[in-house]
Amino acid sequence: MAEQRVPTRDEVLGYLRERRNWGRWGADDQRGAVNLITPEKRVQAASLVKSGRSVSLSRDFPTIPGRNNPMPAQHFLRVMDNAVVDYYGIVYHGYVATHVDALCHVWDGDGMWNGRDPKREVTSGGAAYGAIDKWRDGITTRGVLLDVPRFRGEPSVTLETPVHGWELEAIAAQQGVRIEPGDALVVHSGREAWQAANPDWSGYRPPSPGLHASCLPFLRDHDVSVLVWDLMDASPNEYGVPWTVHGAIFAYGVALVDNALVEPLAAACTEEGRYEFMLTLAPLVWVGGTGSPVNPIALL
Amino acid sequence: MAEQRVPTRDEVLGYLRERRNWGRWGADDQRGAVNLITPEKRVQAASLVKSGRSVSLSRDFPTIPGRNNPMPAQHFLRVMDNAVVDYYGIVYHGYVATHVDALCHVWDGDGMWNGRDPKREVTSGGAAYGAIDKWRDGITTRGVLLDVPRFRGEPSVTLETPVHGWELEAIAAQQGVRIEPGDALVVHSGREAWQAANPDWSGYRPPSPGLHASCLPFLRDHDVSVLVWDLMDASPNEYGVPWTVHGAIFAYGVALVDNALVEPLAAACTEEGRYEFMLTLAPLVWVGGTGSPVNPIALL
Amino acid sequence: MAEQRVPTRDEVLGYLRERRNWGRWGADDQRGAVNLITPEKRVQAASLVKSGRSVSLSRDFPTIPGRNNPMPAQHFLRVMDNAVVDYYGIVYHGYVATHVDALCHVWDGDGMWNGRDPKREVTSGGAAYGAIDKWRDGITTRGVLLDVPRFRGEPSVTLETPVHGWELEAIAAQQGVRIEPGDALVVHSGREAWQAANPDWSGYRPPSPGLHASCLPFLRDHDVSVLVWDLMDASPNEYGVPWTVHGAIFAYGVALVDNALVEPLAAACTEEGRYEFMLTLAPLVWVGGTGSPVNPIALL
Amino acid sequence: MAEQRVPTRDEVLGYLRERRNWGRWGADDQRGAVNLITPEKRVQAASLVKSGRSVSLSRDFPTIPGRNNPMPAQHFLRVMDNAVVDYYGIVYHGYVATHVDALCHVWDGDGMWNGRDPKREVTSGGAAYGAIDKWRDGITTRGVLLDVPRFRGEPSVTLETPVHGWELEAIAAQQGVRIEPGDALVVHSGREAWQAANPDWSGYRPPSPGLHASCLPFLRDHDVSVLVWDLMDASPNEYGVPWTVHGAIFAYGVALVDNALVEPLAAACTEEGRYEFMLTLAPLVWVGGTGSPVNPIALL
Repeated sequence: MAEQRVPTRDEVLGYLRERRNWGRWGADDQRGAVNLITPEKRVQAASLVKSGRSVSLSRDFPTIPGRNNPMPAQHFLRVMDNAVVDYYGIVYHGYVATHVDALCHVWDGDGMWNGRDPKREVTSGGAAYGAIDKWRDGITTRGVLLDVPRFRGEPSVTLETPVHGWELEAIAAQQGVRIEPGDALVVHSGREAWQAANPDWSGYRPPSPGLHASCLPFLRDHDVSVLVWDLMDASPNEYGVPWTVHGAIFAYGVALVDNALVEPLAAACTEEGRYEFMLTLAPLVWVGGTGSPVNPIALL
Repeated sequence: MAEQRVPTRDEVLGYLRERRNWGRWGADDQRGAVNLITPEKRVQAASLVKSGRSVSLSRDFPTIPGRNNPMPAQHFLRVMDNAVVDYYGIVYHGYVATHVDALCHVWDGDGMWNGRDPKREVTSGGAAYGAIDKWRDGITTRGVLLDVPRFRGEPSVTLETPVHGWELEAIAAQQGVRIEPGDALVVHSGREAWQAANPDWSGYRPPSPGLHASCLPFLRDHDVSVLVWDLMDASPNEYGVPWTVHGAIFAYGVALVDNALVEPLAAACTEEGRYEFMLTLAPLVWVGGTGSPVNPIALL
Repeated sequence: MAEQRVPTRDEVLGYLRERRNWGRWGADDQRGAVNLITPEKRVQAASLVKSGRSVSLSRDFPTIPGRNNPMPAQHFLRVMDNAVVDYYGIVYHGYVATHVDALCHVWDGDGMWNGRDPKREVTSGGAAYGAIDKWRDGITTRGVLLDVPRFRGEPSVTLETPVHGWELEAIAAQQGVRIEPGDALVVHSGREAWQAANPDWSGYRPPSPGLHASCLPFLRDHDVSVLVWDLMDASPNEYGVPWTVHGAIFAYGVALVDNALVEPLAAACTEEGRYEFMLTLAPLVWVGGTGSPVNPIALL
Repeated sequence: MAEQRVPTRDEVLGYLRERRNWGRWGADDQRGAVNLITPEKRVQAASLVKSGRSVSLSRDFPTIPGRNNPMPAQHFLRVMDNAVVDYYGIVYHGYVATHVDALCHVWDGDGMWNGRDPKREVTSGGAAYGAIDKWRDGITTRGVLLDVPRFRGEPSVTLETPVHGWELEAIAAQQGVRIEPGDALVVHSGREAWQAANPDWSGYRPPSPGLHASCLPFLRDHDVSVLVWDLMDASPNEYGVPWTVHGAIFAYGVALVDNALVEPLAAACTEEGRYEFMLTLAPLVWVGGTGSPVNPIALL
């Protein structure tokens, strides 16, 4: 992928098929590329904490109705004499809540992660394979941020200018940072600036700006375990496939953290002149769940 | 509190009044003892990651009805052609879900954290003061585990043998570990063994075993920022006060993580011969919320 | 109110104060104008069933997000081997779900129904007074439909042409129907036509067309027990009062059925040449609730 | 079925197969036995309103946790300056909420109502066939109550003494009432007395008392459209079939109203010396739903 050419449909299908990680960690593996995060990797990640600054990558929970929030989360309080409790309800997948997708979340005609059949594994009672509870011990690893707007000198990625894999390589080179196996890749595409300039935009009504299918080899070549992003798949895709970059879930076993709030971390990285840090995120332990709301924390 | 004497009612009231941290971090502070976690503290916490072992302190989300789960969480899936999404709904406070309490969660006749009036600050629209989103950048600090059953040579704490503050001191001494300002204190009381021996027990129907009011000075003297526990306040209390150890929330500004799963961490600590580690937990960012389900991770 | 003059602010305040039904059915009454529905009234209502046609006055439950549905209801199914069950969740008040308001639902500075103090009676634990369960035996009475669009020869009521009380009198006269004590008044304002002509309209973002404050005396003079309507209070009101026609709840003890689907009944009435019928509606028995989704049925 | 003999397994399978109403109202019918309620039937039902007494057949909504309420309904209020609104959430099927089952709710190995395939018709997106919205115009018909405890001179039906079809015939004869096509049959089994005598009983943990499979022919022979009952299928059944009396849904197209509160109506019928009345019930219009909470009203 040193070429700067938009891939053909066959090439994209190849990314999702020939480059698969199926069976790489065993036929019954349910943890995917997170397997690349070894104890040594965690020790190394901890060593990256230098200034002790702690930055959240989560948006506020989406309780307020809006154009990009058609199904707001519910939040109800019950006040008592000496206490107050509350209820949270949410369909967190979508384009507004910060959440991590489990490996069972999406699939294509060839199947789920590791080639399993969703008709068998996923019922309305829960996901029997690749559910979020398989990452119950958290995901703690080295994180690397690639700042696309800063690289481009533009406020944000746009519909006409998706992020391509070769661009990610160029940004890493310019930032002087390497992506290593098991890393969490954090891509800043400038969502806040995009939303401010396009107040009527809603991820629920494409087109949407984001990462092009050409980013798939970048994820696979560098063996990332997690992709944290604020703008997601450039949509619609020109290949007529159900999933492009989201296909990293079922093809590579990568954990995707959608709708991340990346701008504050990008600003902190710029300020400290560093693009690597310790990243921690811990899904809630919903047995059979298809993902979880999360608040990923970067420690610089 | 070098004495091993159960405190009088006046003494307990003194713990909750005279030893208050109100105003310590300013009249408008909303982060409480978490303020003691400085960037330096986080760097130090990261340096405690030695083996790279990652251990969750969270129970499975309580979707299954049961004697100790009278209001199960809701989990519904929606399967589509190429994806599955789900809905989570939960009143997470109580005796079964692992969650962190915000500073607004409880109060007594004297008021909330920092002396605020709950009638003004807490409405059914949300908490205007001391809500969970004030800890949005996560809580990452040095964690110390005190293992009560192991110290006692008993399977668990019991109704007749609550945990006292002087006992925590003794356990720390025996384990050869110090508690330092800003630390997260993890107390293992042996909940799994207690529940196995008492299958009809429910935290919703006291009496319940746990920590005695005499533990309050321990928390205050050592300036802990977080208390993570599997069995909570010994209930009912003999003082006729609404809250004993839970009073650490409004009196000291301490973050409480209730219903933690501590046994696996206690076993890991025993195995590795260490009782200090890096502890990370990140509440979901619910603006105005009274707490959050969490999955705290200990990194050894 | 034979005059066709828009009332002054003092007159509107008079409607809500001087014409109150407070104490009319006793100081502790919680059923309001529904008290006017005697057993004899029900027998009479049943005698109005002539053709046996059954017409629903309910919209579909609002699960689909949209401009006038910012907080969609939740509907999740769980399929099992030999059965399927589902979950319904809804904040039904608002501008989209068909529902009946309990007497505790709204109030003004003078108080709730019967002069009670909402600060005392309504907490986040439930309404202690005037809750929906007080109508647990259903509301079954004579129903009378007044068809405003048909009277006007227009598709619907508009922002510039609210429904006035004198107009309701004129429509009744033209339709040859009397409104009697205890009746359910059904007002057709042509909501479907309004929405079709104004696809961007949302009741959540006034202005909205509907009934003017001048309708209050009509309700009070005729002693209606229920008002069923498809477009509600003309909003905003020019008097600076929190509630105009909705004030019939706390001032007169009238049951309001909001967001009704009236067009099919209006068509049936036109077809049969009758404007009176038996109306039945039964709130779900939520103790302490502020209202209930309902499906009112008119029997011709 | 004049015999008073417990049917064999083959006979019960015969009730569910040979006596099916499949195709009776057309291959695409989705309203089942409710088709038997003609406009004339409704007029006749209305003529049964004599005293004008109105009696609810609904239990309070099950928000309070308990042994027979493992998944309580949610009820949260939000109090504002001049109004209060609330949220209702419920999985209403089960043994505690009063609700009507849609024709899609249950099936056996042979299929759903009218022979449809649940795998095709019922997905986690909704039921495409036999959903509750097909009864959107309400169910209004002649109701007949059969009072089993009164007939037996016992407080309630018991585990050892299920209700048999021949007994229903005897009760109807003794009460001097006929069951006619399209009627709603209301069976009083004395649930309140049963629960009071058996406080640990839970419908979620059989055995449970109720109606025996031998009641199926009674329903079919008399062409009832609705069965309203307080205790349901005697469970477990001795035939090893997934459903006995609940099979009336998919075999006969009968609407079942489970967990009804029948005692007050039974008392009213005894008092008035009549066992026939007008029965009205209106499901909430959930498109694709598997049933609905309801508050059925009997008018005497």
